[in-house]
Amino acid sequence: MYRTHTCGQLRLADAGAEVTLSGWVQRVRKLGGMTFVDLRDRYGITQLAFDSENDAALCEQANSLGREYVIQVDGKVIERTSKNSKLATGDIEIAVSRLTVLNSSEVPPFTIEDNTDGGDDIRMKYRYLDLRRSCVSHNLLLRHRMTMEIRRYLDSMNFVEIETPVLIGSTPEGARDFVVPSRMNPGQFYALPQSPQMFKQLLMVAGFDRYFQIVKCFRDEDLRADRQPEFTQIDCEMSFVEQQDVIGLFEGMAKHLFKTIRGIELTEPFMQMPWSDAMRLYGSDKPDLRFGMQFVELMDILKGHGFAVFDNAAYIGGICATGAATYTRKQLDQLTDFVKRPQIGAKGLVYARVEADGNVKSSVDKFYTQDVLQQMKAAFDAKPGDLILILSGDDVMKTRKQLCELRLEMGSQLGLRDKNKFACLWVVDFPLFEWSDEEGRFMAMHHPFTSPKPEDIPLLDTDMGAVRANAYDMVVNGVEVGGGSIRIHDKQLQNKMFELLGFTQQRAEEQFGFLMNAFKYGAPPHGGLAYGLDRWVSLFAGLDSIRDCIAFPKNNSGRDVMCDAPAPLEPKQLDELNLVVDIKEKK
Amino acid sequence: MYRTHTCGQLRLADAGAEVTLSGWVQRVRKLGGMTFVDLRDRYGITQLAFDSENDAALCEQANSLGREYVIQVDGKVIERTSKNSKLATGDIEIAVSRLTVLNSSEVPPFTIEDNTDGGDDIRMKYRYLDLRRSCVSHNLLLRHRMTMEIRRYLDSMNFVEIETPVLIGSTPEGARDFVVPSRMNPGQFYALPQSPQMFKQLLMVAGFDRYFQIVKCFRDEDLRADRQPEFTQIDCEMSFVEQQDVIGLFEGMAKHLFKTIRGIELTEPFMQMPWSDAMRLYGSDKPDLRFGMQFVELMDILKGHGFAVFDNAAYIGGICATGAATYTRKQLDQLTDFVKRPQIGAKGLVYARVEADGNVKSSVDKFYTQDVLQQMKAAFDAKPGDLILILSGDDVMKTRKQLCELRLEMGSQLGLRDKNKFACLWVVDFPLFEWSDEEGRFMAMHHPFTSPKPEDIPLLDTDMGAVRANAYDMVVNGVEVGGGSIRIHDKQLQNKMFELLGFTQQRAEEQFGFLMNAFKYGAPPHGGLAYGLDRWVSLFAGLDSIRDCIAFPKNNSGRDVMCDAPAPLEPKQLDELNLVVDIKEKK
Repeated sequence: MYRTHTCGQLRLADAGAEVTLSGWVQRVRKLGGMTFVDLRDRYGITQLAFDSENDAALCEQANSLGREYVIQVDGKVIERTSKNSKLATGDIEIAVSRLTVLNSSEVPPFTIEDNTDGGDDIRMKYRYLDLRRSCVSHNLLLRHRMTMEIRRYLDSMNFVEIETPVLIGSTPEGARDFVVPSRMNPGQFYALPQSPQMFKQLLMVAGFDRYFQIVKCFRDEDLRADRQPEFTQIDCEMSFVEQQDVIGLFEGMAKHLFKTIRGIELTEPFMQMPWSDAMRLYGSDKPDLRFGMQFVELMDILKGHGFAVFDNAAYIGGICATGAATYTRKQLDQLTDFVKRPQIGAKGLVYARVEADGNVKSSVDKFYTQDVLQQMKAAFDAKPGDLILILSGDDVMKTRKQLCELRLEMGSQLGLRDKNKFACLWVVDFPLFEWSDEEGRFMAMHHPFTSPKPEDIPLLDTDMGAVRANAYDMVVNGVEVGGGSIRIHDKQLQNKMFELLGFTQQRAEEQFGFLMNAFKYGAPPHGGLAYGLDRWVSLFAGLDSIRDCIAFPKNNSGRDVMCDAPAPLEPKQLDELNLVVDIKEKK
Repeated sequence: MYRTHTCGQLRLADAGAEVTLSGWVQRVRKLGGMTFVDLRDRYGITQLAFDSENDAALCEQANSLGREYVIQVDGKVIERTSKNSKLATGDIEIAVSRLTVLNSSEVPPFTIEDNTDGGDDIRMKYRYLDLRRSCVSHNLLLRHRMTMEIRRYLDSMNFVEIETPVLIGSTPEGARDFVVPSRMNPGQFYALPQSPQMFKQLLMVAGFDRYFQIVKCFRDEDLRADRQPEFTQIDCEMSFVEQQDVIGLFEGMAKHLFKTIRGIELTEPFMQMPWSDAMRLYGSDKPDLRFGMQFVELMDILKGHGFAVFDNAAYIGGICATGAATYTRKQLDQLTDFVKRPQIGAKGLVYARVEADGNVKSSVDKFYTQDVLQQMKAAFDAKPGDLILILSGDDVMKTRKQLCELRLEMGSQLGLRDKNKFACLWVVDFPLFEWSDEEGRFMAMHHPFTSPKPEDIPLLDTDMGAVRANAYDMVVNGVEVGGGSIRIHDKQLQNKMFELLGFTQQRAEEQFGFLMNAFKYGAPPHGGLAYGLDRWVSLFAGLDSIRDCIAFPKNNSGRDVMCDAPAPLEPKQLDELNLVVDIKEKK
């Protein structure tokens, strides 16, 4: 037996007990004739004491231990003379009588401490050592507790977890699939699911009523900081429901998680904000409501006073940053640079300070009378000491998105985005279609199975852009943590959607034929939602990237640098798959 | 709101309540002026009553309903005059006041009943309809309850569920990998995991102490009835454990499942049978212990009496089938045909009946005196009315395996393999290596990380075939439901293993380098186990194939006949992946 207790278990009440512990050497300290070793495992740290007067050879053995050695000790639990209140085991130590080295360790390439000296690249290469740091392993323990609670909640609500296949058919529409060549079916390929969307709808046709699955999904996209080629979805679907049923149930799940994991009791229903309001007031379909700074449109007030930039604008709008009138010229210049960065793309920034006497002092004073500026101040309900920041542009949506970035930046600068504060809402009434300049046509904003609002169905023939969907996203702190929709269960309406989206009959048949076929045999009304597990965990762990809540993430080139994947295949493997690699020169 | 109750919920106590139900039309029956509709959902069946005297139009509407229509009804719960005790809702029916057809249905291609008229192929093509049959959906509900209980148990034992990557590196050793071309890394491929073996070992190096994951694994093999290209494993690993620790914990999990899912309390420890005994007594490393019929070796008794077949045999052994002396000549001929089938490959079968007077009458009487036959009878402890069946051959292991097949067949014929009876055991002390005639060398019986028994380590240099492993399989009713081993955590020993298995230093480095590297930094002693979820569910559901406990299985060619995958890709997709399909003519 390697141990009688873990390194996080022993307390003062255990004093006198003979115990055996195993773990890693975190640190060795010599103090006079004593040697102290911090022994670490997942559960905690226990101090080992070696007394050279008592057993010089044993103490010498302890002195020779290196960091990260794996050892086993026998000894007696004794009360510490100087207790450590920061440690759960801090009242005791082990007077060691026997020490066995189970495995030695080379010196790790970075220190196994929360504040490590290891950079990102080396930590990823030696991820198994990085994961020893409690600040990283904590995220995975949190992830486990969250999935346990998610399953507990959904099971209590009669949801059934059903595994859908990983090797499925490819659907060239939408994002790019990862594909898997089939050896048994030469020249043919499986695809890895971007989501189990069609299978969960089939499960509703099959009568399972309430389905969920915590499931890996795959998307072959060029990666950004918060994207991974494989990610985990909490995928759910329900039958005989309307939008409010789905929202109620999954709001309940969010509240269950906040309560059980973070100890936060959210008693009020979450706000439901129409997409058009979210865009108008925050320039985003995932507004961060931890702080106000709602947009105020200023076209009526600021247009037509001779300032050409505004006079020619399709949109003029601003935010009011409470108490930020103290911003220096340098800070304002930095904000101007911020909005002019190519990722944001604004032409410039107009600002106005509300001074102590109530007067407004702006960067465009020569065009505006104090009277007009006071009207503007009133529109913001701005107070002395506040700073008004204004953007304009010739594209309403683009300018709103720029103003959104500015708002978030100001929220950060003013400390209004506390990671331990949570603002949850539903964004509802999304447009069913969005115009694609690239394709020159309307595309499905979510997917082609999303149901239009019944009252908007007549608009399908007259004003596609105005049709609203029975679709909803949950947003927490500016992060879209999940979203879903009521699906179309009527095959006529579904066919019409395919037609509107420019699918030929044949192409719709090829790609979605089995779903359309299924709908012939009594599909129930249904709808669902998918939450991003990685995002939920990041949010609860206070992480900036999803990467640190994933055990073995990939880098921005989709590589696992630890096990050096992907890699070339053996010629025999390619041969069996009837494939030839033919790398084209980059154009 | 689509419903106030499910179709399995209402009882006599609800009589008088106004309710709304939704579901599928299972059956419409006309009886005098009444029409009765069985309304079905996942939760049960509720009878709807329509009275033509009361509302002729509504009754007419009910009469026009087809099977599998999706409907919604409002009505009042009333007590039935003729109750149905087979139905949980059998005391009540709904006097319907309003009927809405939510969706119509074409006539399904087979009947949605437990005893369906649909063959295997059509049921797979229309799997979403097949899944409506309660005998099929029941398996998936069972699967869900089992995974919930597995997680509950492992969580209570401090196991952490950690997701390991699905896109990993390919290891050409072992079974064939499914591979995934990487667009971002031209000419390179990921592989799908055959198991998360190396990752779970890395998680032990990372200090997670107790890991589990219910996870999809992939193997590109030619498929048999009980194999699927993707299957689900309950994958587990523990640190600071010896074999008995792992066995104890996972025996606990099995007992937890038997208790919570099947209501069977198993209080005794499972038998632990050395592999050599299993082979000697049952000719199998997964003996079905629901019945006895242990092998008895007969070399000493039957050799050297002039019967050339036995005299030249390397093995003579038999089983005693209690009470089967009544077998007719025809039945015995069928048994002979059974063992001579090419899949089994025996040359013939010798039988002997113990007659009422205690005399033994055999098919080889001319070679043996009654005295010898009585010695044989004594060796089996056979009684009057018993049937002794004997095989022989020139390869001990092969003949034992043939005798194993005969034993299982006799068990089935004599009704000794009751699906509601469970016989669990551990097979232990597996050989570390097995000889491969094909490769002309010893191969790892499990995988190259399996630890030899410490006392057998000296044999590595002198008698590889005799080295036993710290490996163990759990066997239930002749099915290997899981297995595992204590791993090597010492890099010297691991290197020696690679050497013995014929890996060059370079090849070992290429394939397992990152694991070997990890072992330099303090790997704890560790070991684990993987259970086959599909097999556990099949066992508890009493299924002959794992296919019916999988929502969307593939056929023996690895095809999903419902969504017709795999399929050819679009040229653009191949192009982006730098691949050309080149199908060779079959030789």
